Amino acid sequence: MKLGLLHPGEMGVTIGAALGESGHEVHWLRAGRSADTAARAQASGFRSHDSLSSLLGQVQAVISVCPPHAALEVAGAVAERKFPGIYLDANAVAPATARRLAAIAGPGYVDGGIVGPPARSKGTTRLYLSGAGAGEVAAWFSRGFVEAVPLGEGLAEASALKMCYAAYTKGSAALMLAIRALADREGVAAGLLAEWSRSQPGLPERSERVAANTAPKAWRFEGEMREIAATFENANLPGGFHAAAGEIYARMAGLKDARRPDLHKVLDALMR
Amino acid sequence: MKLGLLHPGEMGVTIGAALGESGHEVHWLRAGRSADTAARAQASGFRSHDSLSSLLGQVQAVISVCPPHAALEVAGAVAERKFPGIYLDANAVAPATARRLAAIAGPGYVDGGIVGPPARSKGTTRLYLSGAGAGEVAAWFSRGFVEAVPLGEGLAEASALKMCYAAYTKGSAALMLAIRALADREGVAAGLLAEWSRSQPGLPERSERVAANTAPKAWRFEGEMREIAATFENANLPGGFHAAAGEIYARMAGLKDARRPDLHKVLDALMR
Repeated sequence: MKLGLLHPGEMGVTIGAALGESGHEVHWLRAGRSADTAARAQASGFRSHDSLSSLLGQVQAVISVCPPHAALEVAGAVAERKFPGIYLDANAVAPATARRLAAIAGPGYVDGGIVGPPARSKGTTRLYLSGAGAGEVAAWFSRGFVEAVPLGEGLAEASALKMCYAAYTKGSAALMLAIRALADREGVAAGLLAEWSRSQPGLPERSERVAANTAPKAWRFEGEMREIAATFENANLPGGFHAAAGEIYARMAGLKDARRPDLHKVLDALMR
Repeated sequence: MKLGLLHPGEMGVTIGAALGESGHEVHWLRAGRSADTAARAQASGFRSHDSLSSLLGQVQAVISVCPPHAALEVAGAVAERKFPGIYLDANAVAPATARRLAAIAGPGYVDGGIVGPPARSKGTTRLYLSGAGAGEVAAWFSRGFVEAVPLGEGLAEASALKMCYAAYTKGSAALMLAIRALADREGVAAGLLAEWSRSQPGLPERSERVAANTAPKAWRFEGEMREIAATFENANLPGGFHAAAGEIYARMAGLKDARRPDLHKVLDALMR
C-alpha cells in the first residue's frame, strides 16, 4: 500500500520504518517540517511531497503522528481535501478529542495510541488500535519493530488506553520532579533522599533518571497532560494530577535542546 | 519524664509505647476518645486523665499525634491552659501550619514528622524532629521501635520532610487508584493491565495492594493531602497533584471500617 505519514518526527519515523519493512510505500510532506525531520525521512527512504494535496493524491491511507495539540489541525487539513481513505490518528489524545477527530475524518477514521519509546528494537513499542478498521490497520504491520494491537470496535478505546498508560508514567514522573524541587526549596533534600534510600529504594535514582530523560521531551508533554486531565474530568474523576503535571512540563519546555540535563538544571527550571 | 500523649490512636500508641520502653511515664486524656483508643491506652499501661487540665498538671511535655485537621485545635487547647513545657507536634502538616503551631505553642515548640507505619517492629518508623529542642526530644527515645532523627534548628524542617515523603507515597497511590477507576469507566481495564504487566512490571499488583491498604485509612488522608497541596503552592509549585489526591481519598472515606476491601469496592466508591 501507499501510506501518507504526517509527520516523521522521532516517533513517527519509526512507525514509517515499520511500514516500509512490511512492504508499504511511505509518503511524507516536506512543507513546514524541520531539517531534522527531513533528514530522518530521507534516510528512511520515504517519498517527499511539497503539498498536502499532492501527497493525498498518491496514498490510500493517512497516519497522523504529531504532538496532541496539533492533531485536530492535521485531521482538518486532510478532511478539507476530501480524502476518502483510512485516517489513522495515533496521537495521545483524550477519548473526547478522538471522537471529534472521528467526526472530522469521517468513516475512514481509526483510533490509535502508541505506548513505548520510538520503535528501534523489538518488543518496546505497541500501536493500539480501535474502530471498525482496527484489524485492517493492524495487518499493515506484518514486519518491523512496531507491534500493532487491535482492541475492539470502539471509536476511542485506543486513545483511552494511551491516556491511562501515560497518566501513570508521565504523571508520576512529574510528581517526582515536583517533590525534588519542593525538597530543595524547603532545605530538606538530603533528609528526603536518606529516607527514600531506606524505605523507597530506587526512588532517588529514578527521580534523577526521570529528570534527564523527560527534560528534552517536556515541551510536547504539556498538551498531552491537558488531554489526560480532560479524560479524567470527563469521567467524573479529578483532573488535578495532570493539570499539575502539565504545569511542571511547561516549566521544563525551555530544556528542549538540552542533552540529558542534570537534575539541578531541571530543578532550576521548575523553581524559576 | 512524665509525658502527655494526645492522642493514643493507632500511630500514637506506638509512639507512647516507645517512650514507655525508654523509661518514661505516659499520660493520656480519656475524654472524647473512642473505646478502641481507650483499650489501646490501657493495654499499654498509660495513665488516664478525665480532663486536659489534670493531665497538663502532671506532665513535663506534651506530644500531639492526631489527624492533621485537628492539630491546631489540640495545640490551642494546651496553650490556653498556659502549659510551660515542651510541645511536640508530630503531625503531617505543612511548614506554614507548623509555623502557626509554633506561634500558638510558644518557645517549647518542637516540630515533628513521622515516616512509616505504626512502630510495631524495629526499623520501620522514623520520628523526624527539628527546632531548638529537637536533640532533647530525640534523647527521649533511647529504646523501643521508634527511631528519632533530629534534623536541625529549623522551625518546620521535620514537617517539610514529612510533606515531601507523603507527597510521593500517598500521591502516587491516589494516582494509581484514579487510573484504575478511569480504565474501568473507559472499558480498557484489561488492555491497561496487559500493557502494565509487560512494560511496568509489578504495577497491576501494586495498584491492588494500594487499594486494600489505603481504603481503611483514607478518611484521614484528605486533610494531609490538603496540607501537602498548600506546601507546594506556598513554594510556588503546583498543588493540583494533591488537591486531586485529596478528592480521591475523600471519596474513599466511607470505607473506614472495611477490612482490606478489594479493588472493586474501592473503584465503586471512586466512581459513585
